[in-house]
Amino acid sequence: MTEVHPALGPLAGLVGTWRGEGEGAYPTIASFAYTEMVVFGASGRPFLAYAQRTWRAGTEAPLHAETGWLRGPADGRAELVVAQPTGLAEASVLTVGDRDGAVVLDGARTPLLRSPGARPVVDVRRRFVLDGDELRYDLWMTWAGHEDTHHLRAVLRRTVPAA
Amino acid sequence: MTEVHPALGPLAGLVGTWRGEGEGAYPTIASFAYTEMVVFGASGRPFLAYAQRTWRAGTEAPLHAETGWLRGPADGRAELVVAQPTGLAEASVLTVGDRDGAVVLDGARTPLLRSPGARPVVDVRRRFVLDGDELRYDLWMTWAGHEDTHHLRAVLRRTVPAA
Repeated sequence: MTEVHPALGPLAGLVGTWRGEGEGAYPTIASFAYTEMVVFGASGRPFLAYAQRTWRAGTEAPLHAETGWLRGPADGRAELVVAQPTGLAEASVLTVGDRDGAVVLDGARTPLLRSPGARPVVDVRRRFVLDGDELRYDLWMTWAGHEDTHHLRAVLRRTVPAA
Repeated sequence: MTEVHPALGPLAGLVGTWRGEGEGAYPTIASFAYTEMVVFGASGRPFLAYAQRTWRAGTEAPLHAETGWLRGPADGRAELVVAQPTGLAEASVLTVGDRDGAVVLDGARTPLLRSPGARPVVDVRRRFVLDGDELRYDLWMTWAGHEDTHHLRAVLRRTVPAA
């Protein structure tokens, strides 16, 4: 079992595999439900590997995927670096806090890097809540003139014990 | 075995696992040698998953890692979206060409997105040459005032047959 670097602090609790259900909505699209799997992997270094996939709920039709890295907190702030097959790349800053015993990663609005073929999403904002064996998140984005507007919400359960 | 989306065209030959050796150099550092593994994975969609790891040559000491996506060519151009645990994110455009039967992916200089904790690397430029069961690449970067300067070169061999 790979050692979790001590600099990861409260983020160590993310290590493992998570599954659950989410829902997406945006002013420009029909709402949808999805199934999700997320893996946070330790490497012994002060960051975690991050891999996420979603499927349209009740089907095996792939919907979204993203991969990247969660960099351990310094001065109470972690960093999430993400690449998406849609051509979007992200480097978010997340403030690490505690709320009633849960670890809260509260992201700032973050402008995206876009390949020429990517959709013109302007920015995203993420919030993760790690509450024991439950991981919840929300994601907001700015697109088509809708500023910082809620897009995704999911609740995941731990399926593999933390390292 | 996952189907390779026809829009990937000549990039389909990348699908598989690659291993080999590389060397790094830069005006600001001591040169170094590394062992590398790269996986390009098909998903049935018009992009490939990309995952790379390196180790200091002759050791099991991890050196670099990056993950991301290679988006299939449109108008002769592919797109590589990459996240690094160093806090750097990239969305490169690669011109897809043919040179003596090899597939050449010739990247443009690409400004990087950086998390606050990342090193101030300004831009990167990549070139891949897919020559049957051999994959070669070069990487240039701009850092510390050294414009578009060669940093990495590696030669990898296919270790798992293409899908």
